[in-house]
Amino acid sequence: MNVTIPPGLDPGVRADLVAREKEYCRDLQRSGEWAHIWRCAGQYANLSVFDVADNEALHRILWNLPLFPYLSVEITPLAQHPSDLAAD
Amino acid sequence: MNVTIPPGLDPGVRADLVAREKEYCRDLQRSGEWAHIWRCAGQYANLSVFDVADNEALHRILWNLPLFPYLSVEITPLAQHPSDLAAD
Amino acid sequence: MNVTIPPGLDPGVRADLVAREKEYCRDLQRSGEWAHIWRCAGQYANLSVFDVADNEALHRILWNLPLFPYLSVEITPLAQHPSDLAAD
Amino acid sequence: MNVTIPPGLDPGVRADLVAREKEYCRDLQRSGEWAHIWRCAGQYANLSVFDVADNEALHRILWNLPLFPYLSVEITPLAQHPSDLAAD
Amino acid sequence: MNVTIPPGLDPGVRADLVAREKEYCRDLQRSGEWAHIWRCAGQYANLSVFDVADNEALHRILWNLPLFPYLSVEITPLAQHPSDLAAD
Amino acid sequence: MNVTIPPGLDPGVRADLVAREKEYCRDLQRSGEWAHIWRCAGQYANLSVFDVADNEALHRILWNLPLFPYLSVEITPLAQHPSDLAAD
Amino acid sequence: MNVTIPPGLDPGVRADLVAREKEYCRDLQRSGEWAHIWRCAGQYANLSVFDVADNEALHRILWNLPLFPYLSVEITPLAQHPSDLAAD
Amino acid sequence: MNVTIPPGLDPGVRADLVAREKEYCRDLQRSGEWAHIWRCAGQYANLSVFDVADNEALHRILWNLPLFPYLSVEITPLAQHPSDLAAD
Amino acid sequence: MNVTIPPGLDPGVRADLVAREKEYCRDLQRSGEWAHIWRCAGQYANLSVFDVADNEALHRILWNLPLFPYLSVEITPLAQHPSDLAAD
Amino acid sequence: MNVTIPPGLDPGVRADLVAREKEYCRDLQRSGEWAHIWRCAGQYANLSVFDVADNEALHRILWNLPLFPYLSVEITPLAQHPSDLAAD
Repeated sequence: MNVTIPPGLDPGVRADLVAREKEYCRDLQRSGEWAHIWRCAGQYANLSVFDVADNEALHRILWNLPLFPYLSVEITPLAQHPSDLAAD
Repeated sequence: MNVTIPPGLDPGVRADLVAREKEYCRDLQRSGEWAHIWRCAGQYANLSVFDVADNEALHRILWNLPLFPYLSVEITPLAQHPSDLAAD
Repeated sequence: MNVTIPPGLDPGVRADLVAREKEYCRDLQRSGEWAHIWRCAGQYANLSVFDVADNEALHRILWNLPLFPYLSVEITPLAQHPSDLAAD
Repeated sequence: MNVTIPPGLDPGVRADLVAREKEYCRDLQRSGEWAHIWRCAGQYANLSVFDVADNEALHRILWNLPLFPYLSVEITPLAQHPSDLAAD
Repeated sequence: MNVTIPPGLDPGVRADLVAREKEYCRDLQRSGEWAHIWRCAGQYANLSVFDVADNEALHRILWNLPLFPYLSVEITPLAQHPSDLAAD
Repeated sequence: MNVTIPPGLDPGVRADLVAREKEYCRDLQRSGEWAHIWRCAGQYANLSVFDVADNEALHRILWNLPLFPYLSVEITPLAQHPSDLAAD
Repeated sequence: MNVTIPPGLDPGVRADLVAREKEYCRDLQRSGEWAHIWRCAGQYANLSVFDVADNEALHRILWNLPLFPYLSVEITPLAQHPSDLAAD
Repeated sequence: MNVTIPPGLDPGVRADLVAREKEYCRDLQRSGEWAHIWRCAGQYANLSVFDVADNEALHRILWNLPLFPYLSVEITPLAQHPSDLAAD
Repeated sequence: MNVTIPPGLDPGVRADLVAREKEYCRDLQRSGEWAHIWRCAGQYANLSVFDVADNEALHRILWNLPLFPYLSVEITPLAQHPSDLAAD
Repeated sequence: MNVTIPPGLDPGVRADLVAREKEYCRDLQRSGEWAHIWRCAGQYANLSVFDVADNEALHRILWNLPLFPYLSVEITPLAQHPSDLAAD
């Protein structure tokens, strides 16, 4: 997920969006659906892993992100890897 | 990491490489340096997250992968995200 | 899915692969998991839609395609569209 | 089809466009020309399959989409696949 | 259409393929389905316009090109342009 | 040629530009320099073939298009193809 | 790092940003973390090498650049090369 | 060098920029540093060859172009070719 | 023009091709059709400018290059630039 | 510089090439022309900075690399940056 907030956006609107985004993200971490989030160093971007029931759930989560209008998102469907210790 | 093993490779050589790759990967999971590995669904590829001391360590791990000559690797440096619950 | 069979492949091996691919595809159509398949006109390629339980099932289907070593695959996760008549 | 509506668009204008787009899409589903529509998960985008008489008909449908000025469209001509059960 | 014939191909086989391709192309010009063909200057490539009944016909023509295994093809569906004098 | 007219352009200015573009295009069809024009289905774009004396003439035609400031243009120099029936 | 400052930015704001960027860069050169900086000839861009403790430090430095909102950054993690004389 | 002047730029400002660009270019042709300039047919772009002492000189010339804020530039370092008659 | 000669090519065949390429290139420089040739520094590639009657001539020159089967070529049609001193 | 040595290359030939490459690189470090070399972590690739008199010298160095036939090279001309402490 790359974030591109236009420089001209009102600072108050921007601060509110970022705060709501953070709260939204933390709620989904607590429910277990947003399994991992890392900052891509030097970028206004993150790498996230979601653990959801199906594509409908994934879409609902992303579509409702407060920053969704400013995001470009790339999705790679993941499955368990046979070398993963947890696969035994 | 995308794997491209040429179809003409000797099946015994191939099986040996794949078995050694798996063992190598599991050893590094046990030591904690290979933090996550997922299969990219429908691809001979994986998404991995490493937790290493520095770039020297990361390079040593990847360079010594038994399948390294058949891999193309893209690396994104990651840092802790401020929205990560673990950041509190 | 784009298919690239090397021109040097033995014609008998090739014919066998293509026949097994076709049977495999038809079995999955009958089970309902391979929901749609179209030929991309003028290409040795197809556009397919799968209706599967999860990413594990999708990966298992693709990984076991007889032509998998000769395929390059791009996956777009799909969900129901709110304009779809079936969504009412 | 990817949709990019500029954030500065008047909300009323936007809501009207989206509503007309939905009705237009549903009318063409009823006539059978808009054969399939799926939401690309996590994207303001869809994957659609059209069943039309010729390229003139396809162009007329797309050009008249209420959201056409905000769309980027990629088209892949499709034909029946020889492995399709319906081809027998 | 870009042509990539491997340098190692037997010269007799190559000459036969090229001759059959030329005859095939001319037959379809005579029937009116291969409406235009131009050489892309300095490339082993051509730009062609087909006038066919539907995507099935287009696919059949391209798939049966003698050089098809050595071609990469990009297709742009065309329609009549409103500025075309012939549109009046 | 892809056309990108900014949505904010005054409708009267836009209508005038489009009308002048059409007239300009038709004049050059009558003179034989604009040999072919097709609409790319589903795109605000066209595929055109020019029959001009040299690159200077081609540049002059394109540079003076009323819509030139809104166009992105890709040019492929074409020559007669040896398989063209007209080459005999 | 590529810099894209919108032409409409107030000249005083711009001059202040550029001056603060320069001072920030020089402070980090003095501390040794910004090891090298070169101008990419003919571009508003630079190639820089950082010598930092970890990805967290790298992210903090880049995120706090006064020009960060106008930058696009690509990062390549570097390690010592075995041919480097300093490696002996 | 591709030029992208925003359509909204004041026509007087634009005319002045273009005139100064032309004079600047001609001065450097007279000094021998701007060795060649060609128009890319059908594009607001040119292909230029510079004959300069070093990268510092090249950067100074490009950075001071009146149209620099509206240019995107790609640079290929050139050397004498062994097949060049002038190399004898 | 980028040259990619497969490493396995017989050294004698290769030396002969390269020598014939050089002689061919020099003949066309003497006739004035191959106006300029530069080596792209650090690449097995060149940047060339041709001064030919039409696209047919350009195609004939490139198609008959001894190294043509090993070349990838990109062509940009050039015209006189209005800032060129020679345009006065 | 990315290195792609075909897996089928004779191990003795390969070892000899790699050893000669290392010695060549170190000689140029001693002469000051090969100013910096870093390993791109996890890649058979390096990032190098050269300090040479002109493009001729740069080309001669790269063209004579023992591994040149297996390299793909991208070059960015660099100049002194105005923020560089060494620029004062």
